[in-house]
Amino acid sequence: MKRDLYTSRELGRMLAPRSIAVVGASETAGNFGRRSIENLRDYAGTVHAVNPKYESIAGRPCVERLSQREQAPDCVVIAVPRERVEPIAEEAAALGVGGIIIYASGYAETGLAARAAEQERLAAIGRAAGVPIIGPNCIGIINHGLRCGLTFMPHYPDVPAITGHTAIVSQSGAMGYIFVQSPMRGVGFTHYLASGNSCDVDVCDLASYLVDVPEVKSIGFLFEGLRDGARLLRLGERARAAGKNIIAYKMTAGEASKRAALSHTGSLAGTDEAYRAAARKAGLVIVDDMETVLETALFFAKAPPPSGKGPAVLVGSGGAGVIAAAKAEASGLTLPQPSERVQALLAREVPDFGSTANPCDVTAQVLNSMESFARCMSAFLDEPDFDALVFPVAYAHPELTLARYRQVTEFAKRYPGKMLCASWFPVWLEGPGSREYETDERIALFRSTAHCMHALAEWHERARRAAWPAAPRATARAALQLAPGTMTERDSKAALAAYGIRVTREALASDFAAAASAAAQIGYPVAVKIESPDIPHKTEAGVVRLGIRDADELRRAYDEIVAAAGRVEPKPRVAGVLVCEMVSRGVEIVVGAKVDPQFGPLVTVGMGGVLVELLKDVQVGLAPVTPTEARDMIDRLKARKLLDGYRGAPPAHVEALVDMVVRLSELIADHADRISEIDVNPVLLGPDGGVAVDALIVVDR
Amino acid sequence: MKRDLYTSRELGRMLAPRSIAVVGASETAGNFGRRSIENLRDYAGTVHAVNPKYESIAGRPCVERLSQREQAPDCVVIAVPRERVEPIAEEAAALGVGGIIIYASGYAETGLAARAAEQERLAAIGRAAGVPIIGPNCIGIINHGLRCGLTFMPHYPDVPAITGHTAIVSQSGAMGYIFVQSPMRGVGFTHYLASGNSCDVDVCDLASYLVDVPEVKSIGFLFEGLRDGARLLRLGERARAAGKNIIAYKMTAGEASKRAALSHTGSLAGTDEAYRAAARKAGLVIVDDMETVLETALFFAKAPPPSGKGPAVLVGSGGAGVIAAAKAEASGLTLPQPSERVQALLAREVPDFGSTANPCDVTAQVLNSMESFARCMSAFLDEPDFDALVFPVAYAHPELTLARYRQVTEFAKRYPGKMLCASWFPVWLEGPGSREYETDERIALFRSTAHCMHALAEWHERARRAAWPAAPRATARAALQLAPGTMTERDSKAALAAYGIRVTREALASDFAAAASAAAQIGYPVAVKIESPDIPHKTEAGVVRLGIRDADELRRAYDEIVAAAGRVEPKPRVAGVLVCEMVSRGVEIVVGAKVDPQFGPLVTVGMGGVLVELLKDVQVGLAPVTPTEARDMIDRLKARKLLDGYRGAPPAHVEALVDMVVRLSELIADHADRISEIDVNPVLLGPDGGVAVDALIVVDR
Repeated sequence: MKRDLYTSRELGRMLAPRSIAVVGASETAGNFGRRSIENLRDYAGTVHAVNPKYESIAGRPCVERLSQREQAPDCVVIAVPRERVEPIAEEAAALGVGGIIIYASGYAETGLAARAAEQERLAAIGRAAGVPIIGPNCIGIINHGLRCGLTFMPHYPDVPAITGHTAIVSQSGAMGYIFVQSPMRGVGFTHYLASGNSCDVDVCDLASYLVDVPEVKSIGFLFEGLRDGARLLRLGERARAAGKNIIAYKMTAGEASKRAALSHTGSLAGTDEAYRAAARKAGLVIVDDMETVLETALFFAKAPPPSGKGPAVLVGSGGAGVIAAAKAEASGLTLPQPSERVQALLAREVPDFGSTANPCDVTAQVLNSMESFARCMSAFLDEPDFDALVFPVAYAHPELTLARYRQVTEFAKRYPGKMLCASWFPVWLEGPGSREYETDERIALFRSTAHCMHALAEWHERARRAAWPAAPRATARAALQLAPGTMTERDSKAALAAYGIRVTREALASDFAAAASAAAQIGYPVAVKIESPDIPHKTEAGVVRLGIRDADELRRAYDEIVAAAGRVEPKPRVAGVLVCEMVSRGVEIVVGAKVDPQFGPLVTVGMGGVLVELLKDVQVGLAPVTPTEARDMIDRLKARKLLDGYRGAPPAHVEALVDMVVRLSELIADHADRISEIDVNPVLLGPDGGVAVDALIVVDR
Repeated sequence: MKRDLYTSRELGRMLAPRSIAVVGASETAGNFGRRSIENLRDYAGTVHAVNPKYESIAGRPCVERLSQREQAPDCVVIAVPRERVEPIAEEAAALGVGGIIIYASGYAETGLAARAAEQERLAAIGRAAGVPIIGPNCIGIINHGLRCGLTFMPHYPDVPAITGHTAIVSQSGAMGYIFVQSPMRGVGFTHYLASGNSCDVDVCDLASYLVDVPEVKSIGFLFEGLRDGARLLRLGERARAAGKNIIAYKMTAGEASKRAALSHTGSLAGTDEAYRAAARKAGLVIVDDMETVLETALFFAKAPPPSGKGPAVLVGSGGAGVIAAAKAEASGLTLPQPSERVQALLAREVPDFGSTANPCDVTAQVLNSMESFARCMSAFLDEPDFDALVFPVAYAHPELTLARYRQVTEFAKRYPGKMLCASWFPVWLEGPGSREYETDERIALFRSTAHCMHALAEWHERARRAAWPAAPRATARAALQLAPGTMTERDSKAALAAYGIRVTREALASDFAAAASAAAQIGYPVAVKIESPDIPHKTEAGVVRLGIRDADELRRAYDEIVAAAGRVEPKPRVAGVLVCEMVSRGVEIVVGAKVDPQFGPLVTVGMGGVLVELLKDVQVGLAPVTPTEARDMIDRLKARKLLDGYRGAPPAHVEALVDMVVRLSELIADHADRISEIDVNPVLLGPDGGVAVDALIVVDR
């Protein structure tokens, strides 16, 4: 795989081709090459088949060899079994074609080393010639605007030529292909681009190409795993700069699906946490269900820039208001309450058994009057407090629903800065009106209130993130002593301290007198520990004593832990006794860092003890993070309230924790080539700041 | 509201009427009475309108007064404005009609006391005459088999006469009415019954009626709040006995929706926790989204009795397998792995780039051969390890999809003990094949893999619950000293001890000598506390000392807390000093009990400290619970693993906690008329058992 994203120029010949050659087509019905040619029925470019046995196939001219034509085609589709692919790829690459699509399966996804090598050879052929390759194990691509169906799926020409502003990129072929049928419900798509095994071109390249296509406004982005997370971040940057939205659905989640994915496309799924941190940083819109992708993509193709205010919900039935309120709350969306002025306007229309709050239940009485409903809509849309209007469609009727649609679409045009969302309730899923709403340029339709509220929440989130300040580095890059292996607590803390992270004061003593003098200087109570690289589990080995209150107790503790160290087998190296400040107050926090194979350095922050270990109350960010990102991570902890002063405790110094997370993120980012893992556990965070009480750094290179 | 559920006999005249009178109909288009008459177009029973101004309305005879006819009608629909409803209801009740439906709004849902009283008067009229009333603020009812559309919603006769085996009961009118359009997508419904404000007949009555209707197999059950949870339990019992399934969707969730519901139907939504505990106990199928109701209801109308085994997932595309695995895991469903024998059978069909695991990716190659796909299906369906088969439909095609459907429906018939589920992926939501699958008697169709896996998980859960043993009472009912107010810790613990719950050993001492003697008998370390009904927050008042190791420390502590108690203002009553056993080891647990206004006595168990308070790691059961239910509650705690021996601690004695929860549930059930709340916090649960360390009982009557 190319490390940089392909440019649109590099992929343009293949993805918007003027000439196509299909190698391996035959006249046999169902043959993949033949199907591809059939799928080019309405395509205006040049098409020829390559097969020595035929003069023509499905009405297109057929030649003996690829090189027989004067000009190298923009796109070559290789539709032969795996065993015969390689020489054809070589021939095409040598000709300087615009790109190659390989259908054949049986490569890395088999889990066989020889097949993975075979796939790698294909990639090398393309790389050497500068010819991009899509596949293998790939269902193909469609440029719907060109009616260019380069896929072996049957019947593509039956799909109506509705293009819209949404494209689909998918690693999985069949699952992405479900969106090719979107014109059957009236919704268009511009491109369907599948990457399959992604030996060369991957989903990030394909989506990046679409970012530059003017008619594309949002991109559904389906994948199982990514090999290189940095590419996702670059894709996100490019999309953000172009004002386009990528709706990402990672199909793998949990262990069973990752095993399934490995045997399917041969790609590692990666950790969900790192992916979510990256997607958030990249500004992607995250969805977690296939059935959410299209509606959310259509929403983002229509939505104006978000203001970060809240939605008004205007219902004609109390039940719809109840559902909207419940789902908004579950998505973390606040429904702003109308001002007294707006309430007074509403009260002129709404009978006493309705509601002038938000959700606003105008009742069936208002619904029955176009004018009255219009006045209620205006009451909300005229207010700057509301940036969106959600209204249910509860009933699909050929006249009534369309009459309402015609009214609402006029309002949508009148308020171009606001987003209108129809929440479709009828179980008549494609009933009258659904198509009009869904294809409207300014109104989004959702068949699930939860999905509607999720999209609005993600939209608002973007307003919040756009306002995030960048920040200068918290600390200068520091050189660290890094020998491969697990560093001692003392060395680990020294590394943290070099990055300005406050650690417990401590001193290494070689005899009791030195220990006593160190304790006096640090101030009682203190803790003592045997310092040894060979005793990783100190508590279990009995070489730690905590809460020592005076010199007498220190004497006893010193002797005990030295004796305990003497009993450890095999004999450990002992550097001395570490005398440490005891920090007994504060909330227990865990911060850490690691290097993810896909996404690189990560920083984590979580609540300590059982919370982080059993309940996974931990948040992950791509390192380095800014203070704003660190604060956002901390705010997303489930037990966040613990920091506000819990059970009468004073509030913890959250900004000190923000600073610590930022500094740790800079440490791991600077040394990701050497350090694989940092565990600072616990940090005690009190009202005056945080202190790293214990730390462990693993150096693996 | 009647406290017992209405019998089917009592509601039968109204819900399957042979004669109907519509009061307040006029010739004005859109008039609610006129619409009701129009909606009876294809109804074969007797219909007449009541209005002194007309001879006939919409082709039906019109009389001046209700009493003008010889026989009292089975159902009277009152379609006049609120102000005129009451005398008509009185007239109808006096005639001995079968039941009354009241459309008018403006009653309790306005929040006005006078209107709530007006609603109560309607209920009283019905009760006095033994005539059931549906409404007010109600959209009406439909008996679809009789084509009896008693609703003011327009155009009911346009709905095709497809009835199927699923009925809908809804508190909300418009939201329930969305299901009336299910025949538009080919799926039938037998009844749509809305309760509105439920002054008399409520959703539980309506669902209970449907339990007795032979053609009804599952019931979609939508509500916002219930006034009396016991009715839900009785409904559940009746449904279970009849082998029918109730798919319950509580539309309120969270605070905002409860406020919205209150202003909508005037009913309190109740706590979600209590509802979920009750629904679980009642054996309802719980869903959390409107869009899940119909598919889940159709699934349960088709599913054979569950065996509790697992589903096989048979896909033709790796991506669909990945999604199925992810969603199964998220629903807590395990996909059993095929035996070697089955794998060998599959390996004969599946190429090396597919998978013979579960999910089984047979690849497009197998999909292209009917015979090969049949052998793969048989390989799974012949095995007793699998009780269901999930397969995706990835593409909607008029021929291909229907050909597959015809194959699969034959298999469904051949394996009547197994459940087949089609996971519909095409965004062509009502594309070819969807109707066939959805109306098939043996195959369920889901447009969401998550919803499919959730339904299967609920189905399996029913097999698990059917096997739960009943249990005798853990303890005899005990008389307790209950004076209104907050009981002291000592009295609270005495009440727990009376129910066989182990509490810390303790003694009340009136002077130091008695305290020292008590401490010696209990054994050091001990804790001492001032015993006073007037100091509820002892720690804050400085009247508690913990971890006292000997008599000297006891002396000091005793003097300190007595002095501290002397400083409390206003002067507290002091009963003495409580000397308590110190239990320092064990996992901190919180158990409790309270009386819910809707669902009666509840017992709760949660992880202690920050876990229960901040992260709500608590489970609720309807008291009394059996040991099996208590164990299930404990097993559902998020931090359950903590009890297995965490960080090297010995495993906690879970059965002792089970016993404690059972006993506490019996205590609250016995005294729910007096006690409003019990808080046992903490319980320390060690390897040898659990001890209640602190307790508080609130008596409010």
